Amino acid sequence: MRNFVIVGHKATTEPNFSLEDIPGTSGRLDILCRSVTAAFVISHGIRKDVCVYLVLLGGDVTKTIRLQGETLRHLNPDERTTAALLKKALAVPATLEWAMSTSGIFVRTGGLAQVLDDLKAARLIYLREDGADIRELVPGALAEDAAFILGDHTGMTPEEETMISGAGAEVVSLGPTSLHADHCIVVMNWFLDIHA
Amino acid sequence: MRNFVIVGHKATTEPNFSLEDIPGTSGRLDILCRSVTAAFVISHGIRKDVCVYLVLLGGDVTKTIRLQGETLRHLNPDERTTAALLKKALAVPATLEWAMSTSGIFVRTGGLAQVLDDLKAARLIYLREDGADIRELVPGALAEDAAFILGDHTGMTPEEETMISGAGAEVVSLGPTSLHADHCIVVMNWFLDIHA
Repeated sequence: MRNFVIVGHKATTEPNFSLEDIPGTSGRLDILCRSVTAAFVISHGIRKDVCVYLVLLGGDVTKTIRLQGETLRHLNPDERTTAALLKKALAVPATLEWAMSTSGIFVRTGGLAQVLDDLKAARLIYLREDGADIRELVPGALAEDAAFILGDHTGMTPEEETMISGAGAEVVSLGPTSLHADHCIVVMNWFLDIHA
Repeated sequence: MRNFVIVGHKATTEPNFSLEDIPGTSGRLDILCRSVTAAFVISHGIRKDVCVYLVLLGGDVTKTIRLQGETLRHLNPDERTTAALLKKALAVPATLEWAMSTSGIFVRTGGLAQVLDDLKAARLIYLREDGADIRELVPGALAEDAAFILGDHTGMTPEEETMISGAGAEVVSLGPTSLHADHCIVVMNWFLDIHA
Protein backbone atom coordinates (compact mmCIF):
# COMPACT_ATOMS: atom_id res chain seq x y z
CA MET A 1 0.00 0.00 0.00
CA ARG A 2 1.13 3.53 -0.83
CA ASN A 3 0.00 6.00 1.77
CA PHE A 4 0.19 9.77 1.33
CA VAL A 5 -0.28 12.08 4.32
CA ILE A 6 -0.77 15.77 3.54
CA VAL A 7 -1.02 18.35 6.29
CA GLY A 8 -3.21 21.36 5.50
CA HIS A 9 -2.33 23.94 8.13
CA LYS A 10 -5.11 26.37 7.25
CA ALA A 11 -7.49 23.86 5.64
CA THR A 12 -11.09 24.25 6.75
CA THR A 13 -12.88 21.57 8.76
CA GLU A 14 -16.30 22.97 7.88
CA PRO A 15 -18.32 22.29 4.71
CA ASN A 16 -19.36 25.90 4.21
CA PHE A 17 -16.67 26.91 1.72
CA SER A 18 -17.50 27.99 -1.83
CA LEU A 19 -16.90 25.72 -4.82
CA GLU A 20 -16.72 28.93 -6.87
CA ASP A 21 -13.65 30.11 -4.92
CA ILE A 22 -11.97 27.13 -3.30
CA PRO A 23 -8.55 28.75 -2.70
CA GLY A 24 -10.08 31.87 -1.17
CA THR A 25 -12.75 30.35 1.09
CA SER A 26 -11.44 26.98 2.30
CA GLY A 27 -7.97 27.68 3.72
CA ARG A 28 -6.36 26.37 0.54
CA LEU A 29 -8.26 23.10 0.40
CA ASP A 30 -7.49 23.33 -3.34
CA ILE A 31 -3.96 22.12 -2.53
CA LEU A 32 -5.42 19.02 -0.89
CA CYS A 33 -7.88 18.44 -3.74
CA ARG A 34 -5.05 18.39 -6.25
CA SER A 35 -3.08 16.10 -3.95
CA VAL A 36 -5.97 13.65 -3.95
CA THR A 37 -6.19 13.50 -7.74
CA ALA A 38 -2.40 13.26 -8.00
CA ALA A 39 -2.47 10.27 -5.67
CA PHE A 40 -5.31 8.33 -7.29
CA VAL A 41 -6.07 9.31 -10.86
CA ILE A 42 -4.50 7.46 -13.80
CA SER A 43 -5.63 7.38 -17.43
CA HIS A 44 -8.19 4.66 -17.17
CA GLY A 45 -9.19 4.58 -13.55
CA ILE A 46 -8.16 4.91 -9.94
CA ARG A 47 -5.10 3.50 -8.20
CA LYS A 48 -6.50 0.82 -5.87
CA ASP A 49 -3.33 0.45 -3.80
CA VAL A 50 -3.28 4.05 -2.57
CA CYS A 51 -4.57 5.57 0.66
CA VAL A 52 -4.57 9.33 1.33
CA TYR A 53 -4.83 11.06 4.68
CA LEU A 54 -5.68 14.77 4.68
CA VAL A 55 -4.94 16.41 8.03
CA LEU A 56 -7.07 19.56 8.33
CA LEU A 57 -5.83 22.05 10.89
CA GLY A 58 -7.79 25.17 9.96
CA GLY A 59 -10.82 24.67 12.22
CA ASP A 60 -11.71 24.67 15.92
CA VAL A 61 -11.37 20.88 16.04
CA THR A 62 -8.75 19.11 13.95
CA LYS A 63 -10.16 16.59 11.47
CA THR A 64 -8.63 13.98 9.20
CA ILE A 65 -10.18 12.74 5.96
CA ARG A 66 -9.05 9.34 4.67
CA LEU A 67 -9.55 8.26 1.05
CA GLN A 68 -9.10 4.59 0.25
CA GLY A 69 -8.44 3.64 -3.40
CA GLU A 70 -9.94 0.18 -3.16
CA THR A 71 -13.46 1.45 -2.56
CA LEU A 72 -13.20 5.06 -3.71
CA ARG A 73 -16.04 6.16 -6.00
CA HIS A 74 -17.09 9.38 -7.81
CA LEU A 75 -13.56 10.80 -8.03
CA ASN A 76 -13.01 12.75 -11.24
CA PRO A 77 -9.76 14.39 -12.29
CA ASP A 78 -11.04 17.95 -11.93
CA GLU A 79 -10.50 20.00 -8.80
CA ARG A 80 -14.09 21.04 -8.19
CA THR A 81 -15.48 17.49 -8.11
CA THR A 82 -12.88 16.52 -5.53
CA ALA A 83 -13.70 19.60 -3.46
CA ALA A 84 -17.38 18.61 -3.56
CA LEU A 85 -16.49 15.14 -2.21
CA LEU A 86 -14.44 16.69 0.62
CA LYS A 87 -17.32 19.07 1.36
CA LYS A 88 -19.59 16.04 1.85
CA ALA A 89 -17.04 14.46 4.18
CA LEU A 90 -16.85 17.64 6.26
CA ALA A 91 -20.63 17.69 6.61
CA VAL A 92 -20.54 14.33 8.43
CA PRO A 93 -20.48 14.76 12.24
CA ALA A 94 -16.93 13.72 13.11
CA THR A 95 -15.98 11.72 16.21
CA LEU A 96 -12.83 9.82 17.23
CA GLU A 97 -13.98 6.89 15.05
CA TRP A 98 -13.88 6.89 11.24
CA ALA A 99 -17.28 7.64 9.69
CA MET A 100 -17.92 7.10 5.97
CA SER A 101 -19.30 9.97 3.89
CA THR A 102 -19.24 8.49 0.38
CA SER A 103 -17.74 5.21 -0.83
CA GLY A 104 -14.06 5.10 0.13
CA ILE A 105 -14.05 8.44 2.00
CA PHE A 106 -13.94 8.60 5.80
CA VAL A 107 -13.63 11.36 8.40
CA ARG A 108 -12.75 11.56 12.09
CA THR A 109 -11.45 14.07 14.59
CA GLY A 110 -7.73 14.05 15.38
CA GLY A 111 -4.64 14.99 13.44
CA LEU A 112 -1.10 14.03 12.54
CA ALA A 113 -0.28 12.20 15.79
CA GLN A 114 -3.20 9.81 15.27
CA VAL A 115 -2.32 9.25 11.60
CA LEU A 116 1.29 8.46 12.49
CA ASP A 117 -0.03 5.97 15.02
CA ASP A 118 -2.26 4.35 12.35
CA LEU A 119 0.77 4.04 10.09
CA LYS A 120 3.29 2.80 12.62
CA ALA A 121 3.79 -0.46 10.72
CA ALA A 122 4.62 1.39 7.49
CA ARG A 123 7.99 2.73 6.37
CA LEU A 124 7.62 6.47 6.96
CA ILE A 125 9.18 8.84 4.44
CA TYR A 126 8.99 12.55 5.07
CA LEU A 127 9.47 14.58 1.88
CA ARG A 128 11.50 17.70 2.63
CA GLU A 129 13.81 19.69 0.42
CA ASP A 130 16.96 19.05 2.45
CA GLY A 131 16.48 15.28 2.71
CA ALA A 132 18.47 12.45 1.16
CA ASP A 133 18.20 12.01 -2.60
CA ILE A 134 15.10 9.96 -3.45
CA ARG A 135 17.10 7.93 -5.95
CA GLU A 136 19.12 6.45 -3.10
CA LEU A 137 15.94 4.80 -1.81
CA VAL A 138 15.75 2.35 -4.72
CA PRO A 139 14.82 -0.41 -4.42
CA GLY A 140 14.65 -0.94 -0.65
CA ALA A 141 11.65 1.23 0.11
CA LEU A 142 9.54 -0.03 -2.68
CA ALA A 143 8.69 -3.58 -1.75
CA GLU A 144 7.03 -2.68 1.50
CA ASP A 145 4.20 -0.64 2.90
CA ALA A 146 5.27 2.99 2.70
CA ALA A 147 3.79 6.27 3.89
CA PHE A 148 4.90 9.58 2.39
CA ILE A 149 4.38 12.67 4.53
CA LEU A 150 4.05 16.09 2.88
CA GLY A 151 3.40 19.60 4.06
CA ASP A 152 1.34 22.24 2.30
CA HIS A 153 2.50 25.69 1.18
CA THR A 154 3.36 26.74 4.75
CA GLY A 155 5.72 23.86 5.63
CA MET A 156 5.68 21.87 8.88
CA THR A 157 5.81 23.49 12.32
CA PRO A 158 8.67 22.62 14.73
CA GLU A 159 6.17 20.52 16.76
CA GLU A 160 5.20 18.54 13.67
CA GLU A 161 8.85 18.09 12.72
CA THR A 162 9.47 16.62 16.19
CA MET A 163 6.44 14.36 15.90
CA ILE A 164 7.48 13.08 12.47
CA SER A 165 11.06 12.49 13.47
CA GLY A 166 9.91 10.82 16.72
CA ALA A 167 7.85 8.39 14.61
CA GLY A 168 11.05 7.32 12.88
CA ALA A 169 10.49 8.88 9.48
CA GLU A 170 13.35 9.09 7.00
CA VAL A 171 13.78 12.53 5.43
CA VAL A 172 13.94 12.34 1.66
CA SER A 173 14.19 14.99 -1.06
CA LEU A 174 12.84 14.93 -4.61
CA GLY A 175 15.59 17.18 -5.88
CA PRO A 176 16.69 20.71 -6.55
CA THR A 177 13.33 22.30 -7.38
CA SER A 178 10.78 22.97 -4.66
CA LEU A 179 7.48 21.49 -5.85
CA HIS A 180 3.88 21.72 -4.71
CA ALA A 181 2.55 18.76 -2.71
CA ASP A 182 0.45 17.40 -5.58
CA HIS A 183 3.41 17.44 -7.96
CA CYS A 184 5.55 15.64 -5.36
CA ILE A 185 2.87 12.94 -5.21
CA VAL A 186 2.81 12.58 -9.00
CA VAL A 187 6.58 12.13 -9.01
CA MET A 188 6.47 9.63 -6.12
CA ASN A 189 3.80 7.54 -7.84
CA TRP A 190 5.79 7.52 -11.07
CA PHE A 191 8.98 6.67 -9.24
CA LEU A 192 7.30 3.77 -7.46
CA ASP A 193 5.69 2.59 -10.72
CA ILE A 194 8.90 2.39 -12.69
CA HIS A 195 10.71 0.58 -9.86
CA ALA A 196 7.86 -1.79 -9.06
CA MET B 1 13.63 26.15 -23.39
CA ARG B 2 11.19 23.40 -22.44
CA ASN B 3 8.19 23.40 -24.73
CA PHE B 4 5.05 21.36 -24.06
CA VAL B 5 2.46 20.88 -26.80
CA ILE B 6 -0.90 19.47 -25.73
CA VAL B 7 -3.60 18.62 -28.24
CA GLY B 8 -7.18 19.03 -26.99
CA HIS B 9 -9.31 17.19 -29.52
CA LYS B 10 -12.64 18.39 -28.15
CA ALA B 11 -11.41 21.57 -26.45
CA THR B 12 -13.57 24.59 -27.11
CA THR B 13 -12.31 27.59 -29.07
CA GLU B 14 -15.06 29.85 -27.71
CA PRO B 15 -15.06 31.72 -24.38
CA ASN B 16 -18.65 30.84 -23.51
CA PHE B 17 -17.96 27.83 -21.29
CA SER B 18 -18.87 27.80 -17.60
CA LEU B 19 -16.26 28.17 -14.86
CA GLU B 20 -18.73 26.30 -12.63
CA ASP B 21 -18.54 23.19 -14.84
CA ILE B 22 -15.33 23.28 -16.84
CA PRO B 23 -15.20 19.54 -17.73
CA GLY B 24 -18.84 19.48 -18.85
CA THR B 25 -19.02 22.71 -20.87
CA SER B 26 -15.61 23.27 -22.46
CA GLY B 27 -14.75 20.01 -24.23
CA ARG B 28 -12.46 19.01 -21.36
CA LEU B 29 -10.49 22.24 -21.22
CA ASP B 30 -9.89 21.19 -17.59
CA ILE B 31 -7.24 18.76 -18.88
CA LEU B 32 -5.43 21.64 -20.57
CA CYS B 33 -5.76 23.88 -17.48
CA ARG B 34 -4.07 21.26 -15.33
CA SER B 35 -1.41 20.79 -18.00
CA VAL B 36 -0.65 24.51 -17.83
CA THR B 37 -0.17 24.51 -14.05
CA ALA B 38 1.86 21.30 -14.27
CA ALA B 39 4.16 22.97 -16.78
CA PHE B 40 4.69 26.28 -14.98
CA VAL B 41 3.90 26.21 -11.27
CA ILE B 42 6.60 25.54 -8.67
CA SER B 43 6.55 26.30 -4.96
CA HIS B 44 7.68 29.87 -5.10
CA GLY B 45 6.86 31.03 -8.57
CA ILE B 46 6.63 30.23 -12.25
CA ARG B 47 9.12 28.36 -14.43
CA LYS B 48 10.51 31.04 -16.76
CA ASP B 49 12.11 28.59 -19.21
CA VAL B 50 8.84 26.90 -20.19
CA CYS B 51 6.53 27.51 -23.12
CA VAL B 52 3.17 25.74 -23.53
CA TYR B 53 1.13 25.37 -26.71
CA LEU B 54 -2.50 24.32 -26.35
CA VAL B 55 -3.97 23.11 -29.63
CA LEU B 56 -7.77 23.47 -29.47
CA LEU B 57 -9.65 21.36 -31.98
CA GLY B 58 -13.18 21.50 -30.61
CA GLY B 59 -14.47 24.53 -32.53
CA ASP B 60 -15.30 25.57 -36.08
CA VAL B 61 -11.86 27.11 -36.51
CA THR B 62 -8.82 25.54 -34.87
CA LYS B 63 -7.00 27.82 -32.43
CA THR B 64 -3.73 27.59 -30.54
CA ILE B 65 -3.01 29.31 -27.23
CA ARG B 66 0.64 29.87 -26.32
CA LEU B 67 1.77 30.60 -22.74
CA GLN B 68 5.28 31.92 -22.25
CA GLY B 69 6.85 31.55 -18.80
CA GLU B 70 9.12 34.54 -19.09
CA THR B 71 6.29 37.06 -19.18
CA LEU B 72 3.39 34.99 -17.84
CA ARG B 73 1.34 36.78 -15.16
CA HIS B 74 -1.76 36.02 -13.03
CA LEU B 75 -1.30 32.23 -13.11
CA ASN B 76 -2.36 30.59 -9.86
CA PRO B 77 -2.13 26.87 -9.07
CA ASP B 78 -5.88 26.31 -9.03
CA GLU B 79 -7.77 25.06 -12.07
CA ARG B 80 -10.45 27.73 -12.17
CA THR B 81 -8.03 30.67 -12.35
CA THR B 82 -6.25 29.03 -15.27
CA ALA B 83 -9.57 28.41 -17.01
CA ALA B 84 -10.44 32.10 -16.55
CA LEU B 85 -7.15 33.08 -18.24
CA LEU B 86 -7.86 30.75 -21.18
CA LYS B 87 -11.39 32.17 -21.41
CA LYS B 88 -9.88 35.65 -21.85
CA ALA B 89 -7.55 34.35 -24.55
CA LEU B 90 -10.49 32.77 -26.40
CA ALA B 91 -12.36 36.09 -26.32
CA VAL B 92 -9.60 37.76 -28.36
CA PRO B 93 -10.40 37.77 -32.11
CA ALA B 94 -7.90 35.23 -33.46
CA THR B 95 -6.05 35.58 -36.77
CA LEU B 96 -3.03 33.82 -38.28
CA GLU B 97 -0.77 36.09 -36.20
CA TRP B 98 -0.28 35.73 -32.44
CA ALA B 99 -2.36 38.24 -30.44
CA MET B 100 -1.77 38.80 -26.71
CA SER B 101 -4.68 38.45 -24.30
CA THR B 102 -2.94 38.90 -20.93
CA SER B 103 0.77 39.09 -20.13
CA GLY B 104 2.49 35.99 -21.54
CA ILE B 105 -0.62 34.50 -23.16
CA PHE B 106 -1.16 34.60 -26.93
CA VAL B 107 -3.72 33.16 -29.33
CA ARG B 108 -3.90 32.55 -33.08
CA THR B 109 -5.78 30.37 -35.54
CA GLY B 110 -4.09 27.18 -36.75
CA GLY B 111 -3.22 23.90 -35.12
CA LEU B 112 -0.59 21.21 -34.71
CA ALA B 113 1.02 21.61 -38.15
CA GLN B 114 1.78 25.27 -37.46
CA VAL B 115 3.11 24.53 -33.97
CA LEU B 116 5.41 21.82 -35.32
CA ASP B 117 6.66 24.34 -37.84
CA ASP B 118 7.31 26.90 -35.05
CA LEU B 119 9.28 24.24 -33.19
CA LYS B 120 11.27 22.81 -36.07
CA ALA B 121 14.58 23.82 -34.49
CA ALA B 122 13.73 21.98 -31.25
CA ARG B 123 14.28 18.31 -30.45
CA LEU B 124 10.79 16.86 -30.73
CA ILE B 125 9.76 14.20 -28.26
CA TYR B 126 6.34 12.61 -28.59
CA LEU B 127 5.18 10.98 -25.35
CA ARG B 128 3.33 7.76 -26.11
CA GLU B 129 2.94 4.62 -24.07
CA ASP B 130 4.78 2.31 -26.48
CA GLY B 131 7.81 4.57 -26.95
CA ALA B 132 11.41 4.11 -25.85
CA ASP B 133 12.11 4.29 -22.11
CA ILE B 134 12.51 7.93 -21.05
CA ARG B 135 15.52 7.00 -18.95
CA GLU B 136 17.45 6.17 -22.11
CA LEU B 137 17.21 9.81 -23.15
CA VAL B 138 19.58 10.99 -20.43
CA PRO B 139 21.54 13.14 -20.81
CA GLY B 140 21.46 13.83 -24.55
CA ALA B 141 18.05 15.44 -24.77
CA LEU B 142 18.50 17.69 -21.83
CA ALA B 143 21.10 20.20 -22.91
CA GLU B 144 19.14 21.44 -25.87
CA ASP B 145 15.84 23.02 -26.80
CA ALA B 146 13.21 20.31 -26.48
CA ALA B 147 9.51 20.09 -27.24
CA PHE B 148 7.32 17.43 -25.68
CA ILE B 149 4.12 16.53 -27.53
CA LEU B 150 1.18 15.05 -25.61
CA GLY B 151 -2.34 14.00 -26.45
CA ASP B 152 -5.41 14.41 -24.29
CA HIS B 153 -7.74 11.64 -23.07
CA THR B 154 -8.66 10.63 -26.64
CA GLY B 155 -5.13 10.03 -27.99
CA MET B 156 -3.80 11.26 -31.34
CA THR B 157 -5.55 10.60 -34.65
CA PRO B 158 -3.73 8.69 -37.42
CA GLU B 159 -3.32 12.03 -39.30
CA GLU B 160 -1.69 13.61 -36.25
CA GLU B 161 0.56 10.58 -35.78
CA THR B 162 1.73 10.98 -39.39
CA MET B 163 2.29 14.71 -38.91
CA ILE B 164 4.31 14.18 -35.72
CA SER B 165 6.41 11.41 -37.17
CA GLY B 166 6.93 13.44 -40.35
CA ALA B 167 8.31 16.26 -38.19
CA GLY B 168 10.98 13.86 -36.95
CA ALA B 169 9.75 13.37 -33.38
CA GLU B 170 11.21 10.59 -31.26
CA VAL B 171 8.61 8.45 -29.52
CA VAL B 172 9.27 8.14 -25.81
CA SER B 173 7.40 6.46 -22.96
CA LEU B 174 7.23 7.43 -19.30
CA GLY B 175 6.73 3.84 -18.20
CA PRO B 176 4.23 1.12 -17.43
CA THR B 177 1.37 3.25 -16.09
CA SER B 178 -0.76 5.33 -18.45
CA LEU B 179 -0.88 8.84 -16.99
CA HIS B 180 -2.93 11.96 -17.68
CA ALA B 181 -1.21 14.68 -19.72
CA ASP B 182 -0.68 16.97 -16.71
CA HIS B 183 0.96 14.20 -14.70
CA CYS B 184 3.24 13.40 -17.65
CA ILE B 185 4.32 17.05 -17.68
CA VAL B 186 5.04 17.01 -13.93
CA VAL B 187 7.23 13.93 -14.39
CA MET B 188 9.01 15.44 -17.42
CA ASN B 189 9.76 18.66 -15.54
CA TRP B 190 11.10 16.70 -12.58
CA PHE B 191 13.14 14.45 -14.83
CA LEU B 192 14.68 17.46 -16.59
CA ASP B 193 15.33 19.21 -13.25
CA ILE B 194 17.26 16.36 -11.69
CA HIS B 195 19.34 15.86 -14.81
CA ALA B 196 19.99 19.54 -15.46
